[in-house]
Amino acid sequence: MPADHGSRRAALRAALAARDLDALLVTNLVNIRYLTGFTGSNAALLVHASDAVGAEERTVICTDGRYLTQVGEQVPDLRAEIARASAAHLIESVGRRSPSSLAFESHVVTVDEFAAWSVLAPDARLEPVPGLVEELRMVKDDFEVGLLRAACTAADSALAELIERGGLRPGRTEKEVGRELEALMLAHGADGISFETIVAAGAHSAIPHHRPTEAVLGSGDFVKLDFGAEVGGYHSDMTRTYVLEQAAEWQRDVYALVARSQEAGRDALRPGAEVSAVDAAARRVIEDAGYGELFLHGLGHGVGLEIHEAPGIGKLGTGTLLDGAAVTVEPGVYFSGRGGVRIEDTLVVREQGPELLTLTTKDLTVV
Amino acid sequence: MPADHGSRRAALRAALAARDLDALLVTNLVNIRYLTGFTGSNAALLVHASDAVGAEERTVICTDGRYLTQVGEQVPDLRAEIARASAAHLIESVGRRSPSSLAFESHVVTVDEFAAWSVLAPDARLEPVPGLVEELRMVKDDFEVGLLRAACTAADSALAELIERGGLRPGRTEKEVGRELEALMLAHGADGISFETIVAAGAHSAIPHHRPTEAVLGSGDFVKLDFGAEVGGYHSDMTRTYVLEQAAEWQRDVYALVARSQEAGRDALRPGAEVSAVDAAARRVIEDAGYGELFLHGLGHGVGLEIHEAPGIGKLGTGTLLDGAAVTVEPGVYFSGRGGVRIEDTLVVREQGPELLTLTTKDLTVV
Repeated sequence: MPADHGSRRAALRAALAARDLDALLVTNLVNIRYLTGFTGSNAALLVHASDAVGAEERTVICTDGRYLTQVGEQVPDLRAEIARASAAHLIESVGRRSPSSLAFESHVVTVDEFAAWSVLAPDARLEPVPGLVEELRMVKDDFEVGLLRAACTAADSALAELIERGGLRPGRTEKEVGRELEALMLAHGADGISFETIVAAGAHSAIPHHRPTEAVLGSGDFVKLDFGAEVGGYHSDMTRTYVLEQAAEWQRDVYALVARSQEAGRDALRPGAEVSAVDAAARRVIEDAGYGELFLHGLGHGVGLEIHEAPGIGKLGTGTLLDGAAVTVEPGVYFSGRGGVRIEDTLVVREQGPELLTLTTKDLTVV
Repeated sequence: MPADHGSRRAALRAALAARDLDALLVTNLVNIRYLTGFTGSNAALLVHASDAVGAEERTVICTDGRYLTQVGEQVPDLRAEIARASAAHLIESVGRRSPSSLAFESHVVTVDEFAAWSVLAPDARLEPVPGLVEELRMVKDDFEVGLLRAACTAADSALAELIERGGLRPGRTEKEVGRELEALMLAHGADGISFETIVAAGAHSAIPHHRPTEAVLGSGDFVKLDFGAEVGGYHSDMTRTYVLEQAAEWQRDVYALVARSQEAGRDALRPGAEVSAVDAAARRVIEDAGYGELFLHGLGHGVGLEIHEAPGIGKLGTGTLLDGAAVTVEPGVYFSGRGGVRIEDTLVVREQGPELLTLTTKDLTVV
């Protein structure tokens, strides 16, 4: 099944019409990839509202000469123009054709770019409209879920092989483990790495976003692995926390607590749920145990073409989950100087209950 | 030798004073890493001009609660404040203390961020000053060159092992080769991959920025590899083009032409050289052979904490090379539908002649 970029653009055209906008100049490259399949490093895309005359045919992508061949191959269904200043070129073309207003992605356009556009097209009515395509991107179609599943499978398989070959053992460094896990993801079909792998041993496991060091894994350590694979542009995100050789009582207790919290968070995922309520469902478990202050971050985030995308799932988050949204659920409890546990899955929100994409066991595993 | 962030901040303070600016709000995370060593995903940094009272002591970094431990470890020499809206927090603090103007990085600050700041601090005199830290970053200090060298070594070693183990042979796919090369870079000490590895076989080698596919390498194909390793945040960038099993006459000719062009480009690197003249030195060789139109891109670019950074070396580039700048030199000739050659090194500009960091042979190699 190929990606259905045409349907995605139709949804955007409808969203523009619903908001009484004439057209949107898309300059976020991730959004352009979502709407067209184009993966080059310079592009702009002009999309008209569905109530405009000839809206579909007037859609145009602009990129520079380096991508002449590529844009033809990746975007055979759209008119392509070639210009180095791709966004400015499309703004000028709108200016020549009609006096209509032009929405732009004010959450990614820089102050300098906007100033240059204003000089170039002083009469253009440029309207800041942030996050419109990102909103559409929250709900994943079957093609996207397929790629997310493939990415999660690569991560699951890599972790399984790492454990099986004894890759997690006292005496290795965090960096060694991180590099091996990344190489294994590539060997298991990942096109790339989602983000720099977190390997955090012992006291380091209490640092939520720890970068791997030359620190050596020791017997009895917590080892927290937070990592992901990228397949076809889509990212997996998973965290597992292991104990090396022997687990102490306090480690079993904190692990069980975080596992219960993570389960409560997963159970709260359903279409229509307030994101703040989902966060609260998981957070309450940890607060009730008296450790609320040690859960230092939000519960989760959307995941797709970007490793962090809408919706954010946190205490102060607003909005509700949509059917088909792909999100992470990742509570953690961190005892500074001692160690911490985080457990994270990637899931898709569904009416019948969330679809789990990261399948590695969450039972406490002593390796 | 540790990174000397203090000297870098002193250079920025002097640059601010030289431009009659009171202070700069740094929000580009790469620039913050350069100036402080902080690698978290949310931060802002306020740096005062050297002629301000207590300029050094007033330097302050702001990040959110997730990075409380990390900022203390990575930036022990600066005052740190904790706030989720890190940039806004520092703007408010400036507003409370003095009526001075505040420069900001208008090339990275979005229209939405700027609008929010204007609401928050309506009296602040915010002045757009793009690219100031990027200018300082052009010249690499010894610590940075050391990391660039380590990154280039990881790439050289990975390529050598790929060739030695017969990784480049008919029957393999572009994707297989790319994944193996990336895994080998990690095995040879890379912390990560600089960018998605380009493996382009046969006619694909004529596409400058080709993404690896399931296409199979064939006997007699050009195989173009453009790849890099990241070590300590610094990126290597190298391209080599091989011929599989047997080279045809036209392949030997185009290879020799690109190699001569690349040598001319390297020879033109010296402090004070106009970047457009460096481009011209390499381009002339290809133009004189009648293939000027097939050299589709600029000659090179700066490389460091980002894979593409200042200075750009192209036909329309302006400015001169500085002693200690790290750059690539990468001419190419591309016969559409047939095949192409690019040869690229990473080098440091020096008075006594450029220092070559990517050491893999550029002699035509038939594998």
